Amino acid sequence: MSRAYNFCAGPATLPESVLRQARDEMLDWRGTGMSVMEMSHRSDEFVQIAETAEKDLRELAGVSDDYAVLFMQGGASSQFSTIPLNLLGEKDSADYVNTGIWSKKAIAEASRYGKVNVVASSEDSGFTTIPDQSSWQTSADAAYLHYTPNETIGGLEFDFVPDSPGTPLVADMSSSMLSRPVDVSRFGVIYAGAQKNIGPSGLVVVIIRKDLLGKARKQTPTMMNYQVIADNGSMYNTPATYSWYLAGLVFKWLKEQGGVKAMGEVNLRKARKLYDFIDTNEFYANPIDPRFRSWMNVPFTLADDALNGEFLKGANARGLLNLAGHRSVGGMRASIYNAMPEAGVDALIDYMTEFAKERG
Amino acid sequence: MSRAYNFCAGPATLPESVLRQARDEMLDWRGTGMSVMEMSHRSDEFVQIAETAEKDLRELAGVSDDYAVLFMQGGASSQFSTIPLNLLGEKDSADYVNTGIWSKKAIAEASRYGKVNVVASSEDSGFTTIPDQSSWQTSADAAYLHYTPNETIGGLEFDFVPDSPGTPLVADMSSSMLSRPVDVSRFGVIYAGAQKNIGPSGLVVVIIRKDLLGKARKQTPTMMNYQVIADNGSMYNTPATYSWYLAGLVFKWLKEQGGVKAMGEVNLRKARKLYDFIDTNEFYANPIDPRFRSWMNVPFTLADDALNGEFLKGANARGLLNLAGHRSVGGMRASIYNAMPEAGVDALIDYMTEFAKERG
Repeated sequence: MSRAYNFCAGPATLPESVLRQARDEMLDWRGTGMSVMEMSHRSDEFVQIAETAEKDLRELAGVSDDYAVLFMQGGASSQFSTIPLNLLGEKDSADYVNTGIWSKKAIAEASRYGKVNVVASSEDSGFTTIPDQSSWQTSADAAYLHYTPNETIGGLEFDFVPDSPGTPLVADMSSSMLSRPVDVSRFGVIYAGAQKNIGPSGLVVVIIRKDLLGKARKQTPTMMNYQVIADNGSMYNTPATYSWYLAGLVFKWLKEQGGVKAMGEVNLRKARKLYDFIDTNEFYANPIDPRFRSWMNVPFTLADDALNGEFLKGANARGLLNLAGHRSVGGMRASIYNAMPEAGVDALIDYMTEFAKERG
Repeated sequence: MSRAYNFCAGPATLPESVLRQARDEMLDWRGTGMSVMEMSHRSDEFVQIAETAEKDLRELAGVSDDYAVLFMQGGASSQFSTIPLNLLGEKDSADYVNTGIWSKKAIAEASRYGKVNVVASSEDSGFTTIPDQSSWQTSADAAYLHYTPNETIGGLEFDFVPDSPGTPLVADMSSSMLSRPVDVSRFGVIYAGAQKNIGPSGLVVVIIRKDLLGKARKQTPTMMNYQVIADNGSMYNTPATYSWYLAGLVFKWLKEQGGVKAMGEVNLRKARKLYDFIDTNEFYANPIDPRFRSWMNVPFTLADDALNGEFLKGANARGLLNLAGHRSVGGMRASIYNAMPEAGVDALIDYMTEFAKERG
């Protein structure tokens, strides 16, 4: 087939123009006679690619010079250890909000390095809502407050940035980074695995307030020490150069789309359209508190689970791919990141309408 | 220009046919409507890509079922911590051989986790030779014996596999992996950053004897725990999928070349040709003990360092790229990994001959 609409939660669809450019530059980047993936990371050419990507990201996300931007490896899952190893410092505990599977993974890993205080949890509701911040039991001596702005599997998303006076706020933005405007100055650390809104897997972007550097525990692996990575411009060792280059192409594309604000408007429109359809068609359902429905990941169920296989088969036949829900929850999930065009959402709704009509 | 001869030490040149295939498959992998980098790592398609790559690597390197093959992130530098964290176990010390800059980095990192016994060092000679194994001061209680078969910066390479009865032998094969036949069964762990002979940076391949799994220290980051990575088929989290795919294409290419034995013969021929030229032309010199000269990285100096800039400029103009030595040692270095064709070495020798004639 030609290009399909790929609703995968990650690795996720990328802008077609980015892939075309990567394809055209594969054997010879701008007359150098080399692919970007064959370039020394210390060459003038790659340093220019790397610095431009950082500059564009800073511009897109509104990252001030008070923050370092790091291009690391290992995905968000490595950050689950890197965060406590670097931020606990002399303190022994950290606050975590539990809103789903990814929160729980972050909590489990942090618990291996210190005391985790779960300040709030929506587990009782099946992770269908976000506990109001007035009910959170934060601790005075927490080294930081960690939360997951968007739960990729559950499809649950914060519509606010938590207040965290005096305690650095840390966010796993893997599946919401650059999807709508966020005030970076309210955060101590933002980290995001690249494979949703940024680029290919194998890259994790970290935005860290500079005063939080230099506090790593003694036995922190050097490659996980934020200070070392920052001091070396993310080139303490050979970084994931090709992923970094692709991230740069995605940032350029995002600027061409009008930046994060314009993208946020498109994303809201895409999400509303799909949720409105689900809410008005009896055959489909989404369990999440409407206020906290994710703009990026839209889980839904059919009226009869026995039809799931048939639904997916028909979707595949139309080039609507990867709509199966996460293996831990079942049902369906449409991930509609930045690179998913509105036409993809329209095509999905057309198919869902037809399927419900025929089989509902 | 069209494709140059790229002598970069890493990220390094890749086979042109691999890049062509990656280019052709960039927007649509075999009719799926997706790029490989957009595929779920758990999809049938990617699992097939991943498993085929592992199978081909096992076949090429002769890896038996007694070993697990892991596709990890973070490069060899992450392994410098991962190795002691996983292998020290209840022991407190490990043996390391010091033959150059990369050995020293591995030693420095391991020293943060236990006692490092440097069993032998050629630092006194400026790392121009390998100490005879009869002189090594190994310790009876070492958890493992670590060495660097090929020192990428110094251009120094072991021509033997050390004996290590009763102690697991651990090797950083980043710059020599798959370049000549090696008896894997003599090793406890082999690890290799991909960006020399395997694929793009952002991937590190680990081959570990299964009885060495499950000994990680308590506070080992989960993403650095070999047992966890092995139990999850290197998909505990999202792996570097695109790099893995490219590694698979390189493995296929290597099989087409006749495998590691045939490649080793070509590599020996390439290296001999270049060293013979350097030894017979008074304008050039290589300081390494001939027995231990690297087949992969050939450092050399000009008779007059003041001509280095001119030499590099002339080389660039002919499409002979990245011949500058490592910033820590200066001079020149030609890295001639598997993917460097013999014609590239011939072109380099032609240029060196001419330059020496004109400027010598």
